[in-house]
Amino acid sequence: MKRRTFLKSGASLAAGATLAAPAIAQDRIEWAMPSSFPKPAPGVGTNATRFAELVEILSGGRIVITVYGAGELVPPFAVEDAVQAGNVPIGHSTPYYAASKTAAAHWFTGVPFGLTANEHYAWLRWGGGQALWDEIYATRNLKPFYSGNSGTQAGGWFKSRIGGLSDLQGLNMRIAGLGGEMMRKLGVNAVLLPATEIFQALQSGAIDAAEWVGPLLDQAFGLQRLTNLCYTPAYAEPAAALEIVVNTEVFAALPDDLKAVIEAAALQCAMETLGQFDYMNVGAMASLRDAGVEFLEFPAEVVAAMKSAWAEVLEEQRAASADVARVLESYEAYQAGAVAYANAFAGRYLAAR
Amino acid sequence: MKRRTFLKSGASLAAGATLAAPAIAQDRIEWAMPSSFPKPAPGVGTNATRFAELVEILSGGRIVITVYGAGELVPPFAVEDAVQAGNVPIGHSTPYYAASKTAAAHWFTGVPFGLTANEHYAWLRWGGGQALWDEIYATRNLKPFYSGNSGTQAGGWFKSRIGGLSDLQGLNMRIAGLGGEMMRKLGVNAVLLPATEIFQALQSGAIDAAEWVGPLLDQAFGLQRLTNLCYTPAYAEPAAALEIVVNTEVFAALPDDLKAVIEAAALQCAMETLGQFDYMNVGAMASLRDAGVEFLEFPAEVVAAMKSAWAEVLEEQRAASADVARVLESYEAYQAGAVAYANAFAGRYLAAR
Repeated sequence: MKRRTFLKSGASLAAGATLAAPAIAQDRIEWAMPSSFPKPAPGVGTNATRFAELVEILSGGRIVITVYGAGELVPPFAVEDAVQAGNVPIGHSTPYYAASKTAAAHWFTGVPFGLTANEHYAWLRWGGGQALWDEIYATRNLKPFYSGNSGTQAGGWFKSRIGGLSDLQGLNMRIAGLGGEMMRKLGVNAVLLPATEIFQALQSGAIDAAEWVGPLLDQAFGLQRLTNLCYTPAYAEPAAALEIVVNTEVFAALPDDLKAVIEAAALQCAMETLGQFDYMNVGAMASLRDAGVEFLEFPAEVVAAMKSAWAEVLEEQRAASADVARVLESYEAYQAGAVAYANAFAGRYLAAR
Repeated sequence: MKRRTFLKSGASLAAGATLAAPAIAQDRIEWAMPSSFPKPAPGVGTNATRFAELVEILSGGRIVITVYGAGELVPPFAVEDAVQAGNVPIGHSTPYYAASKTAAAHWFTGVPFGLTANEHYAWLRWGGGQALWDEIYATRNLKPFYSGNSGTQAGGWFKSRIGGLSDLQGLNMRIAGLGGEMMRKLGVNAVLLPATEIFQALQSGAIDAAEWVGPLLDQAFGLQRLTNLCYTPAYAEPAAALEIVVNTEVFAALPDDLKAVIEAAALQCAMETLGQFDYMNVGAMASLRDAGVEFLEFPAEVVAAMKSAWAEVLEEQRAASADVARVLESYEAYQAGAVAYANAFAGRYLAAR
């Protein structure tokens, strides 16, 4: 077995396409894929290992992917960079971890008071979202695929109760994405820490609150051992997408059936992972409740203030980036109607069930 | 090109596995696939043609499927029968169209006040639902795959306003699945008509109301030309699944990669079709509103009566079928927790957004 280790050899991606082409013709393609998440983490991590498994099965063994967990190969927030630079041919992450490169990336993960998981995919597939994502990521040599979603997340684990806006003043909180910007406007000191550092920061008192994902993952990371106050839902993260990014030269060198395999595997993972959260969050929520965790609602004045703060962040983001403005034109056109539709259909059903 | 026409030759399926095996080795497999739905019908029909397209791409042309719309090859409600009998190797339908053969089939499509589309898939994939579906369908030589969902449907188009329970007495209504049984308990004369007959029946006055799917499809079938009163949501159909069924012998004869291709193509279709409804229902709803359609809520006493009627139907179904009882043990265990989870997460988000 001839291993094509982009990593150990330190081959640059100028060589990527060159390497990939003969590999397709003569033998199997072997790819190293770093993830932003720990491999065993249910949902976010298993999404990557399942993707690798599906690609191997669907390709009849013509593509074999070795997954590297957060930090094993590249730092958790540097996965897109590594693929762009050609140090690896493919990566697993979530767009907003690279938002410092492209603010528009936030909308490809999900934003406060934004689209739900189903609406997000609907927008990508049918509303022009994928075309915008492709176009914006192509400038960084990346071809992105939607590969999963957490669904509606939890609003955060807090060391003390949130009775009103005053309780947020000066609070140190781990929160990702533009939710952090939104919370800053409410006086929160928002910080972004990778998954692997959340527990320790909350334990040591470096942070007073942590937004991570939801019952399944928060339990797996042990947050319930530090506080039993969990607020739901995350208005900051009504949905958060996972992605597969392939270097554009590597992707272009694949034959059509293997290109389709990458997309189909990513979408099967997307189904399975959202299903995993929808199924396993239920059991996790029940066992957390049994262990004394309270799932609380944010007070109405906090929700209203979040909404106003988000409206300000949105305008700042729109003004600061032409790409964001362009994405918003498409995103907002859909969201306005999607809210009316959800209110009359899915939302009305959930309220009455 | 050697066409393997299961149909024109009238080959029985005893021959199916025998035919399939050499076809895999020597040349491509050609399948005829009848659907229960008209081919051009957005969502339900295009789900079948897209599945065929994806299978051909993903298999590198090794499987080529020709799709036949409702009634072109077999009657719309006889697709599963045709696959079971071996007259065709594969079919496209929705489980409850064959519920007269297996009452449990209702739960593989969706039931009143039941799981949403996402919860339905979560139950199939992670909660044992697929294993039950496989087991129950295997007794009829069918291997089923989940291939799509309409999401939360519309409750129906009514010729007159529903002010209360009395307005339902003696109403002739097209409604599918166990929703029909539920409505009978409220005095409705529920009938099941195939898609192709709904418009004419509502136009001629043979029926006074019709539950079909939702804005996109109802508009495509022209129901808004007959009345402008649409009630939402369908408590009878909070979700409805589409399926691909393959004859078990035909499926068993496939190599592992092509088995995986069938599943991946079905799941990619599931994503795309739910996305299509989530995207296109929004535009359809807006244009229907512009054309004067009112999207109305059922009165609270009607919703409460539906819920009570459904509880009765549920117990009758459980008592009448050991398979239903077995499916319910799994389905209800998940639903109880899923409702609590949705109430604290997705439902709370939609209510506040």
